[in-house]
Amino acid sequence: MVRYAQVIHIRPERLAVYRQLHMAVWPAVLAKIRECNMCNYTIFLQGDHTLWAYFEYVGDDFEADMAKMAADPMTQEWWAICSPMQKPVAEAVPGENWHNLKKLVPIQA
Amino acid sequence: MVRYAQVIHIRPERLAVYRQLHMAVWPAVLAKIRECNMCNYTIFLQGDHTLWAYFEYVGDDFEADMAKMAADPMTQEWWAICSPMQKPVAEAVPGENWHNLKKLVPIQA
Repeated sequence: MVRYAQVIHIRPERLAVYRQLHMAVWPAVLAKIRECNMCNYTIFLQGDHTLWAYFEYVGDDFEADMAKMAADPMTQEWWAICSPMQKPVAEAVPGENWHNLKKLVPIQA
Repeated sequence: MVRYAQVIHIRPERLAVYRQLHMAVWPAVLAKIRECNMCNYTIFLQGDHTLWAYFEYVGDDFEADMAKMAADPMTQEWWAICSPMQKPVAEAVPGENWHNLKKLVPIQA
């Protein structure tokens, strides 16, 4: 199991709607997350402007699973609604929406 | 078990030293963390300026355990070294160093 953390900005004026969406995530989206070996996905909020996500990856090919998720039509519909409410952080690389964080110390659990 | 996330800024010019400290956290500090019912403590880094911590709390009185940690002399020595390298985020309340984040959706795991 590998712990992941990701960060992205949320547009403050869209936060209320973004939260409503996440209080009732579509079953197909949740199913795809599980199918792609992501567990205990939890989103935290800093102020009204930044989202921090934590999850545990239990598969053995993270890139392949993320590609599988990105190819899922219903997940694409979900992202089409959510993405305009978000804004990548300055550190995001081209093509990255949520920015993957590195561990401060590589040997941490 | 309750998942916690916290955020704080790191002074970029102190990051290298801060990382060295965390590659060899003092045994007394680690022991106190465990004694205070914090598990799987992991720190992630955004760019060279922000630290994001995740941990799981398995006790039944978070405030009391945090007070116990804060009263520990060796933990105080550790913080005396680390704290000047950090800078609380704008959302931190008075007396807060690492800022506790709320979950976007209360019902999340």
